[in-house]
Formats: sequence, C-alpha cells, structure tokens
Amino acid sequence: MSTQRHYEREFVRTFFTSPTAVKGEEDSAKMIRSAAQLRGMQAPDTWIPDNEDATAPSMRDEGVQNIIEVVSEHGADFPGEIHPRVVWHREDPSTRYQGFQQMLEIADPDNGAVENIDGFVIPEVGGIDDWKKADEFFTIVENEHGLDEGSLAMSVIIESGESELGMGRLRAEMGKPDNNLERMFLLVDGEVDYTKDMRAITPTGGLPPWPELRHNTSRAASAAGLVAVDGPYDDIRDVEGYNERMKNNQAKGMLGIWSLTPNQVVEANTSPLPPKTGSWLLEVGGEDVELDSVDGNEVYDGNGVGLEETDDGTYVLRVGGEEHELDEDELREELLDMTSYIPSMDDIVDSMEEFEAAKEAGRGAIAMTQAATLEIDGVEVEVSNDRMWDEATYQAAMTPIALFQDVYENRPDQHDELAEMYGADVVERAMQVGSV
Amino acid sequence: MSTQRHYEREFVRTFFTSPTAVKGEEDSAKMIRSAAQLRGMQAPDTWIPDNEDATAPSMRDEGVQNIIEVVSEHGADFPGEIHPRVVWHREDPSTRYQGFQQMLEIADPDNGAVENIDGFVIPEVGGIDDWKKADEFFTIVENEHGLDEGSLAMSVIIESGESELGMGRLRAEMGKPDNNLERMFLLVDGEVDYTKDMRAITPTGGLPPWPELRHNTSRAASAAGLVAVDGPYDDIRDVEGYNERMKNNQAKGMLGIWSLTPNQVVEANTSPLPPKTGSWLLEVGGEDVELDSVDGNEVYDGNGVGLEETDDGTYVLRVGGEEHELDEDELREELLDMTSYIPSMDDIVDSMEEFEAAKEAGRGAIAMTQAATLEIDGVEVEVSNDRMWDEATYQAAMTPIALFQDVYENRPDQHDELAEMYGADVVERAMQVGSV
Amino acid sequence: MSTQRHYEREFVRTFFTSPTAVKGEEDSAKMIRSAAQLRGMQAPDTWIPDNEDATAPSMRDEGVQNIIEVVSEHGADFPGEIHPRVVWHREDPSTRYQGFQQMLEIADPDNGAVENIDGFVIPEVGGIDDWKKADEFFTIVENEHGLDEGSLAMSVIIESGESELGMGRLRAEMGKPDNNLERMFLLVDGEVDYTKDMRAITPTGGLPPWPELRHNTSRAASAAGLVAVDGPYDDIRDVEGYNERMKNNQAKGMLGIWSLTPNQVVEANTSPLPPKTGSWLLEVGGEDVELDSVDGNEVYDGNGVGLEETDDGTYVLRVGGEEHELDEDELREELLDMTSYIPSMDDIVDSMEEFEAAKEAGRGAIAMTQAATLEIDGVEVEVSNDRMWDEATYQAAMTPIALFQDVYENRPDQHDELAEMYGADVVERAMQVGSV
Repeated sequence: MSTQRHYEREFVRTFFTSPTAVKGEEDSAKMIRSAAQLRGMQAPDTWIPDNEDATAPSMRDEGVQNIIEVVSEHGADFPGEIHPRVVWHREDPSTRYQGFQQMLEIADPDNGAVENIDGFVIPEVGGIDDWKKADEFFTIVENEHGLDEGSLAMSVIIESGESELGMGRLRAEMGKPDNNLERMFLLVDGEVDYTKDMRAITPTGGLPPWPELRHNTSRAASAAGLVAVDGPYDDIRDVEGYNERMKNNQAKGMLGIWSLTPNQVVEANTSPLPPKTGSWLLEVGGEDVELDSVDGNEVYDGNGVGLEETDDGTYVLRVGGEEHELDEDELREELLDMTSYIPSMDDIVDSMEEFEAAKEAGRGAIAMTQAATLEIDGVEVEVSNDRMWDEATYQAAMTPIALFQDVYENRPDQHDELAEMYGADVVERAMQVGSV
Repeated sequence: MSTQRHYEREFVRTFFTSPTAVKGEEDSAKMIRSAAQLRGMQAPDTWIPDNEDATAPSMRDEGVQNIIEVVSEHGADFPGEIHPRVVWHREDPSTRYQGFQQMLEIADPDNGAVENIDGFVIPEVGGIDDWKKADEFFTIVENEHGLDEGSLAMSVIIESGESELGMGRLRAEMGKPDNNLERMFLLVDGEVDYTKDMRAITPTGGLPPWPELRHNTSRAASAAGLVAVDGPYDDIRDVEGYNERMKNNQAKGMLGIWSLTPNQVVEANTSPLPPKTGSWLLEVGGEDVELDSVDGNEVYDGNGVGLEETDDGTYVLRVGGEEHELDEDELREELLDMTSYIPSMDDIVDSMEEFEAAKEAGRGAIAMTQAATLEIDGVEVEVSNDRMWDEATYQAAMTPIALFQDVYENRPDQHDELAEMYGADVVERAMQVGSV
Repeated sequence: MSTQRHYEREFVRTFFTSPTAVKGEEDSAKMIRSAAQLRGMQAPDTWIPDNEDATAPSMRDEGVQNIIEVVSEHGADFPGEIHPRVVWHREDPSTRYQGFQQMLEIADPDNGAVENIDGFVIPEVGGIDDWKKADEFFTIVENEHGLDEGSLAMSVIIESGESELGMGRLRAEMGKPDNNLERMFLLVDGEVDYTKDMRAITPTGGLPPWPELRHNTSRAASAAGLVAVDGPYDDIRDVEGYNERMKNNQAKGMLGIWSLTPNQVVEANTSPLPPKTGSWLLEVGGEDVELDSVDGNEVYDGNGVGLEETDDGTYVLRVGGEEHELDEDELREELLDMTSYIPSMDDIVDSMEEFEAAKEAGRGAIAMTQAATLEIDGVEVEVSNDRMWDEATYQAAMTPIALFQDVYENRPDQHDELAEMYGADVVERAMQVGSV
C-alpha cells in the first residue's frame, strides 16, 4: 500500500539536461541529437531537452524546432522518458506566455514529436497558485491538440522560498475539480537559483548544502506520490563528491539527481542500487573507513586505530590517542560497536528470502548474522553482527530492491550491464523477492 | 503562561510498548501482565499495550481481550497513564474500521477497563483529515458508552510525509466545531515506517537521523500544547547511543522517547532530569570530554590536549598538534573557551533561588560564577566561568525543574528513587523553586 | 526580478537593541541617548529602543517618554532606521493592549517623534491571526494620527512554535483586503524565549543551534519579500563565535543579526561584506585552515598535513596519519581538492566585470582562474583553480555586491570607513558592476 502514483515509473534515478540549440555549431541540435542516442547505463531515466537556462535566449525558438525534429526521429527508441524544459517565471507573465507557446508547438501532433513526449518541466515556479497557471496551460495544450487530459506530466524546479512552501500545499490541492495537478511527476531542486533567491552568501561562493530544502522536497514527493530529484552538481570532475551527495540524498528519501554529463548519468544510475559485494566499515576518528578484504580477513591498515595483543592474552586498543586495556570479550564488543556492514545485493536478497520463509513458517522475527575476521596491526579478531529482522525491517530493506525491480522492468537496455554487475542468478532472485 | 494543555501531565518522558498477545505462551497476556506491574523508575509515564505492530495480526482479537483483562485487574494501581495502540492505516478503510471496533470494545464500560484507560494511540495516520476520521471514532465511542466527549485522549504516530505535513495544520484545526481534536495528547515519531514511506536508503540499512522530522514534531507539539515523543531505538544493548539520542532530542524540545524494555524505561525516565553532580567538560578535537574530579581538581588525562609550564612562567598549550605559547592570563582565557560546565540539580536550584532573591530585591540580572581548578598533565590552572542570569535565563532554566516537579507530583512511586538520587533536601528545594 | 519589497532598504545587517529606561541612573534615558548618537560602522541599520525585555516592567511608561524625547532630538540625524520594540504577548490580552497604547503614544505627532519612527517591533507573536491583531493596531494608530495607512513598518520576533508556523502562512495572507500585512519588514528569531517555548533542554544550559528555525525564517522572508534577522548572541566577549554564527546564518540567506553592543554592531555590519583581501583555505582534519601569505606563497605551518619531496621527484603527502605517495600531477590534483579560495571584494568585482564583458561579446560562460603557490613543510606546489562562470554564477555572486551597494546608498556615514577598508577605486567599481 502506498500513496497512489499517476505515472508509470515508480523511481527516477536520473534527470539529464541537454541544450536544445547551440550557437556556432553546424548542427545546432548536436547536443540533443547525441543525447537522444544514449543507451544503457549512460541513458537517463528522464531526459530533459533544456530550452531554458542551458540554451541561450536567442536560440530558444530554434531549440523548439530542434526538440521536435530530434524527438520525432529518435524519441521512439529512447529508453527513458522525455520531458523538455520550457521557460517560465513566477514573476514574469511574458516568460510564462512564451513557455505556454513552446509547449503548444512541441506538443502539436502535426509536428510528430508528441507521442514520444512524456511531459514538460516548468522552472522557476512560485507558490501553488503559480503551479496552477502552468497546469492550466497543460490542460489547454492537451485540449487544443486532442490529447487526453492529464496525459502530459508536469514537473517543476524548486528554486525559490515560495515554491518550497508551495510543495507543502500540493497534496491538499491535487484532486480539486478546478485543476489537473494529478499530472505532477517530479519535484526537482534547483540550488543555484534557490541560493540566489534566498540571498545566501558563502565565503568561497560555493553552494550551501540546504538540507532542509532537500528534506522538504522529499517529504512533499512522498506525501503527494511524486518523485524527488536533487539539483545539478557543477563540479563534474568530482565523482567522489557527486557520490557523497547522492548518498546523503538517499538517506533523505531523495533518490533522483540531476546529471550534466553521460558520465554523471552512469554514476547516478548506479548509486541507489545495492553494491555487488558487501563491505565492512570501521569507524576511525568519526568517519567510516572501508576495510580491505584480504585472504578472508577484513584488514585495517591506517594509523587511526591500533591493536596489540599482550603476553597475558589481553589486548591494548588504541583509538584517537587513547589506549584501552581489554580482555577478549571486551575487545570484541568494542570492535563490534566500531564496525558496520554494507550488505551486497546478494546479502539483501538472501535476508529477504530467509525472512519470507520464516514468515511463511509463522515466525514474525528472525536474527540475521553477519560475521567477519577483522585484522588490525596483524592481530585477528572474530566479530559477528546480529540484527533482528521483523516485518518493518523487511519492508525498509525492500526500498532498494523495489527500485532495482522498477529499473529492470522499465529499462531493458540496462539488462546486460545489470547482469554483468550482479550475475544473472542474483538478478533473477532479486526480481522474485518481495512478491510474497 | 503557555499554550493551554487539555490533559493532566505536562511532561511525558516515556512511551513503553508491550505486545498484547504473544503466540505460543501459556498466558498470551504475559507481556502486558508483567508490564502492568512495573513500578518506580522502571514504570513509564505512558504505557502502550500495543495491539498493532508488536502483536501478530492473528493475535489481535485476543490482544483486545487481554488488554481488557489486564487493565481491569492492574490498571487502577498502575502509576503511569495507559494508552493502548489500536490498528489504523491512512490508506486502508478496513484497517481503520478494525481500529474503531477495537476501541469500541476496549472502552466498553461493561468490560471494566475503561476507567483506567486514558486514551488510544493511532498509528499510520495521514493528513489532518485522516486524523479527524480517528477523532470522530473516539467521539462515537464516547457517545455510545456514555463517556464525556473528549475524555479519551488521542495520540498519533507520525510515520509518513503526509502526517508530518498534517502536524503543521493541527493548531489551526483544533477547536473547530466539527471535531474534538482538543483530545490530542502525544505526537510520536515512528522512524522505521517513516523511512519506508519516504523511501530512504542507507548503505548499512540503519535508520537516517531525520533531524527535520523531529524538529517539526517538537514544533507542532509546542504550537498545539501537546507532547513530542521520539520513536523506538532498536539496539537495546546500546545504552550510550540511546542516551545520546535523548540528549539530541532534548535540545530540540522533544523530551519523550519510546522505550522497548524496562531498562530503556529507566534510562528514559532519568535522562531529562538534571544530574546529581555537576561536571566540567573540556573540548578535545571537536568533542566534549568529561573531566574527572580528583581531590578537588578537574583532571584531564587524555592525549588530545597537553599543557606544560616553562621556566619563565609562561605556558605551552598543545591542542590538536598545534602548540601555543601563552602567559597565564591568555592560558586562562583559552581554557575558559575550551571548557563548559554541566550544572547539577543542586546548582540549578541554587541559581534559581539566588535569582529569585535578587528579583525580590529589585535587581533584574545577576552574575552566577562557577569556578574550578583544571589539571592537565599535572599543571593546575584556576578558571572561573561567569554567566549573566536575567529573567529569560531563569525561565529557560525552569524547563528541567518544571519537568522534575511534574514528575514528582504525578509519580509518587518514584519519590524514593528521586530522594535517593538527589537527597531529600535538594528534592524539597527543587519543589519550592519557581513559584515566585 | 524579485519578490516585491514594500520598504526602502533591501538589506539589514544589524538590529541593535537598547533599554529605553534604566533605573537608578540620573538620566534614565542614558542608554538610548548614547545609542542615538552612534555613527558609521558602530551605528546599526536598524536601531531598536527596547521597551520590552531589556527594560524593567516598572520603567516602561518612562521608557515610552524617553523614546519620544530622544527620537525627537536625535532621530533626524540617526543614520539607520528606528523601530522601537513595544510589549506584546500572544497569550495575554492585557499585554497586547499595553503594546497598543505604547504605539499610540510614541506615534502621536504632537509628541514630535513619529516622523523619525520607521515602525515597531512586536515580540512574542503567535499564529498568523495574532499577527493580524497587531497589524490592526498599527492601522488604528495610523488612522488616529492621520498617518498614511501602511506607513509604519511591522517587524516581529519569532519565539514560539506557533509563530514559526505562522511565517509559513504569511505570504498567502499579505494583500488580503482585511489586513495591511504589506507593512511587514523584519522576521527576527528570538532563540532564548523560543527555547523556553519549545521546552528544550541542554546539559550546560546553552542555547540549541535551531538550524531549522533559522532556515524557516529565511525562507519565509524570501517568500514574502522581507528581511531575516537572527537573535542575540549573549556571549559578547566571544567575537569569534559571533562571526561563526553569522557565517552560518549567511549560508542560510539570513543576512541580519541582533547586536547587543556597539562592538557587536561593528562586527555585524562588516560580516556580510566581502573581505578586503582574498585568502586560501586548506582542509585539515575536516576543518578549513586559512593559509598565511608569505612572500607570495600560501604557507601552511601546522602539523595536520605534511609534505616531503623524495629523491626520485615524487612526493609523500601525509594527511591525518595516512601517507600517500604521489607524482607531481597527482599531488597537484589532491591539493586542489583540499584547497579553496575566498575571493576578495576586488576579485568578485573583477570576475563580474569580466563576465559582463564576455556577455556583451555574446559568450554565455567563461572560466575564471585562481592560481597560487602552496607551501607545506617548505615544499612549494603550484595549484590553479578554474571555475566556470555562467549567468547563474554571476547572479549568485551578485548577492554580496548588491548588499554592498545597498549599504553604500543608504549609509553615507559609512563611506569613509568603506573607502578605507577597500580603497576608493574598488568601492567605485563595486558600485558600477551589476547594472548591465
């Protein structure tokens, strides 16, 4: 049971924007022409031919024609959804009217693109009443072109305080007879313009992290049955930073993110999926360090934690400059507190299968054990990590699996890469689990 | 002056759940039968016979009968309030109807339990209109059974985005003629299901910290005159982690927490009370380390901070690998910045009495001094910490004292333990203070 | 384009409160008399003769007369705006009526002060309907005294959960025919009373950081075209802590802060302005350390990071106890990740001028380079930091410049100090930029 969604895909990992018309190129549609031909992990779940900020104002009329041409030619074969971004501004009626005209033209069936257009992205929205103006234009476009009412999805970019507040009212407004806001699909944060609108200042000029905005976006998506997407990560060379951001977002329930390049698409398509292999973490100085698996041991070879066995069989554990004398049991307990385990896809599927079997046998809770031999400064210690699984644990573990299943069903072009990543057997079992 | 509360107790430290019917036991009511007989610090402020998630679906009819039987027998002597949790789901009318029937049966005066039932806990609520459906069932139950309208308190578990948003509207809805939402009592976070509803993913499967949810719950409670309670802390062996979480919650104004065992109840009943003895903290590497009181000195014996007196009477202070040469005054100022003091119950009562006397003498602000001899690497330094107290400081210091007074008035079964903890004299003075 | 503001100044850095009547002084108006004569960086953008908490209840009638006397005499020459704080409480009609009477008296044209009174500050407001009660009193005061409706600005102190929620509704209520809430000006957090209202407890009695409150205040200000101001920082000796707090606030878009002393006013007037000179930061152990500029090198002389060149031309970089062997390119990349640059006012103006020129030449994005020679343990490494500037970067960089321009236009009394700080040339260029 979950809040009813009005669109097909339950999850969206990637929101990839491309300029619709580039000046000075022989083929001004070059960028969207190549984007439209991406496949597999390089192809996004949602592709956004961007006729707003990524395209110069003077090129946007040509951008509209380029979208029509490229989507007509390549749209049917594109593996993700296609949602062009048009222009819009809560404070400028002439921009809003241009946005309306762009939608009207792109969606004209005579132009041949609309059957592969899934919806439009509206930037710079204001309060909820401004969303309704955009929604009304969608309705008029659908009506003028004989399309089903509500068939074009509407996504918005949250880049102002008033639109952040507007999200909180969305659930109460959807379903009212005077709008068609059931067409809502993605709530996308746009932190660059949001930072400007909030008039925030940082010493280096970097973007503030805006944790509350992301929470509120994720919450609004959850409450209204929509999908939350984080904004662009500008430093495209910083793959580690992009992944850190996604991990932080996922802990907020924000599972999608903007991508600026096919390489970012690959990272973002992969990030929310469980890893191929599990790994042990050791907390060192407030941070989790991944241990190396060597000959069956999980090895820590840094200097932040030290371990020594004394002659009388006790241990000296050094953590952050403090030394602790411990007997074997105390050592094991201490290390257990300092370690955690990131389960692999295989581990998760195993645990879920085991819990499903237990449930069928009438048991409501079972203990799952994860054991390892830790090695610190050459000293080996066995630890084992018990976790109780009940229905709630099982349901929570289901989120990454449900996402995987959604990806697998909707993205046949990624089957080969997924099978290569996990092995065909794990993929098959992951597709079975959870149907009990 | 504060927002009007419609219930008796002003503070709730503990929310202790027990399964109402356990399969395979000779006495399926075993768990609630033993919970009902808890006393003193092991007994919670609110006890929740849990006929929802803690009890298997097939056992819930029996659970209802067990609640009736156990509360009839032991309810009158139970020192806390009793609020059974019934089933409910914002997306399933059949579950809601079951919840209604459970309440109707438990509250039937012919069954003998209702006079010791203080209210019911409704899980899995949705937006505010869903809360009103539950409220309406309370009203019907009260009407059918000849109980006063509003006499049964309603508490809810926040475990979805829409209910988080609903909290923000509660204050505006209470008091409207078509509902009896003045019956609201506890706002309880349920992070496991909330995490599922928000579709959040963490690598290890652990719960995200959800700071915004806890802030919003505390704020909604404050705005509507209710009590905020945090969700369960699953790792029942991790006493330190449970206490850390409570400290974090208390800084948000969320003074109550779920407890899963009598040991957790003891911890949670104790946590928001001021400590018996004060203690000095030294900031070492970004963390506060509690100093040891030895022979009147406050001693730091770790390696994170070092101190040496040179021949010419200056000092070398080593902090995180950096050395600072300081004269005595500079050293004292530096150490003052690095230290802080946690006042004891006795200290707080002292300061409040002193401020009350000053106020009576017509003074609006006085300085309170806290002095100590710090000892680092054998070097002794006197520091003293001045703090201005004005009316606002006094009022803020009142919160833990008001909580203590509320506990003392409402929980005679804890008098002995409190007197043992603080000494009879401090208890008596703590009960006098603040009445000026 | 931005949300329409109904007041003159776009930015407010400082909110300086002074007691209106001090007991036991020969001149009870002493404090406001001296505050009224502050000039330059010591004078606040908004000055608040405080007839509420800073003044004893028994002195508040005299406080009203003192305000009238001092503002009549000095108000015309005061360089900032003047907004007295009157009494108010959401839960006490008699306090509200007193607040109304205080406003009526202070704003009486016969008393000679009102032409230099810009508005009033209302503390302890409740939900939005309580704000409307205060707004109605402003309207009556204006009407009784023949002032233009809306000419007196209203600012509020957020010190309860219900007023935090009220902020979220402000935008939807402004402009309704039955109120004059367009008079709203400042949203000011009052964390001491907020902490009390939220019933938060910290072990040392210190204030919780309340990040969500500050976000919500900044967001509400942004959504309604108002200015967000943080509450008082009590530890007036702790200049570093006050600046840290302001930096944290600025990253939330909260650019103003309460000041308790002229020294705090200087700090707060300066903090949001770009620095005179740029500086390089090195991330050491999770914190950014500012490097020393020595003979054209940026020098790190701590122990947290170490660097050594080996005989074969490779490098050993030591970070947090871990050693990394790197060739020159890897070293440069690693150090680039660890460094960041805080641009000076001159740097920002340079970049904006460069971008404006590029835009005029038809280019939408250009790379800005910042280069430096880092020196660690005597080893020198050249790093250079490229950043792409597009329209959005330019707009975001505009915030501190727009603030500077607003200050410069509205505060002629600070011209000399600003010219001394930046040099006349930089000031002049900063006043030109952004008008393209």
